[in-house]
Amino acid sequence: MTDTSLTQLSSKERIAKVAAKLFAERGYHAVGVNDLCEAAGLSRGALYHHIQSKEHVLEEICSSYMSQLGVLARRTLEQESDPQAQLRKLGFDLIDIIARHKAELTVCFREIQSFTAERREKILAFHAAYESAWVHALKAGHAAGSFRPYSKTRLKGLLGMYYYSYIWIRPNHPEMIRETADTFHDIVLQAVLAN
Amino acid sequence: MTDTSLTQLSSKERIAKVAAKLFAERGYHAVGVNDLCEAAGLSRGALYHHIQSKEHVLEEICSSYMSQLGVLARRTLEQESDPQAQLRKLGFDLIDIIARHKAELTVCFREIQSFTAERREKILAFHAAYESAWVHALKAGHAAGSFRPYSKTRLKGLLGMYYYSYIWIRPNHPEMIRETADTFHDIVLQAVLAN
Repeated sequence: MTDTSLTQLSSKERIAKVAAKLFAERGYHAVGVNDLCEAAGLSRGALYHHIQSKEHVLEEICSSYMSQLGVLARRTLEQESDPQAQLRKLGFDLIDIIARHKAELTVCFREIQSFTAERREKILAFHAAYESAWVHALKAGHAAGSFRPYSKTRLKGLLGMYYYSYIWIRPNHPEMIRETADTFHDIVLQAVLAN
Repeated sequence: MTDTSLTQLSSKERIAKVAAKLFAERGYHAVGVNDLCEAAGLSRGALYHHIQSKEHVLEEICSSYMSQLGVLARRTLEQESDPQAQLRKLGFDLIDIIARHKAELTVCFREIQSFTAERREKILAFHAAYESAWVHALKAGHAAGSFRPYSKTRLKGLLGMYYYSYIWIRPNHPEMIRETADTFHDIVLQAVLAN
């Protein structure tokens, strides 16, 4: 373990961090518990002291990041009253988090199908809780007369646009991140504003 | 091998088909050559008679489907002269192919990073060739005065919206496919039409 940024973290956080990196690079199913032990610098026994299973680590990553997105989103709804401003902040925060925690968000958006049934339901509920903030802003904008009626398919398309950026967004490129957030917000507005 | 639809295919096509399904389900790195042998009903020797390596199969899948998309897209540019009609047909065909060949397109859009450097360049060139049809339609619409100036980031967002649908689109749901294509086309038009 030579990555000094990892030495500040608790063992559990370190496991989640190295697991997200490995899952993002190779895909969840290709990473074994031994790979996690090696990357975290822990014996198998020590690893299992902190985690129940490999799927448990995947769940921790996805639930932690999707719930962080949910917390941020609810704060946005509280702090901004204008639905357009809410959408701008929701989109900016989403791109920003994808860029800053690219491995974790890659895992969140790409590995949903890797969960077994019960855990998948739980994780999809975190996604739904996050996405409900977008639904709220879109419906509020329609109620105020400025947005078109809410469409679930339209929202799926717009969120897919943000989510897929995990493939190409570059962390540490603030200008790219800002331009992406601005351009995507413009697409969102054009798609939802009433004529 | 009990899937009778596979018995009509050549061995090479059968390998590509079962490989795409396994890669889509588990992720490329989690599938071994032995898994491919078992799913294709071939011995290791017979498998290597048809393929050079596992990465070669991934390359065949990605190059075949991205070049099919490219052929369809160039035909669209030839057959439709109006840029709006070109965008409608490009988007419809994209959703249609994702829905009808979901495993293969999941692999195309999700496993780009799984290639080693040289092959990745080759596959990215297929992606770029396909995407150039969209660039062409967008620039033609701007030249004709009906579209806003071309923006690379905007196109990346709009294509990401289509690509990410591999996660949730359901094959054999023609109504869902049609509604998705219509809604996405509407988002594209709102994003690119000049005011």
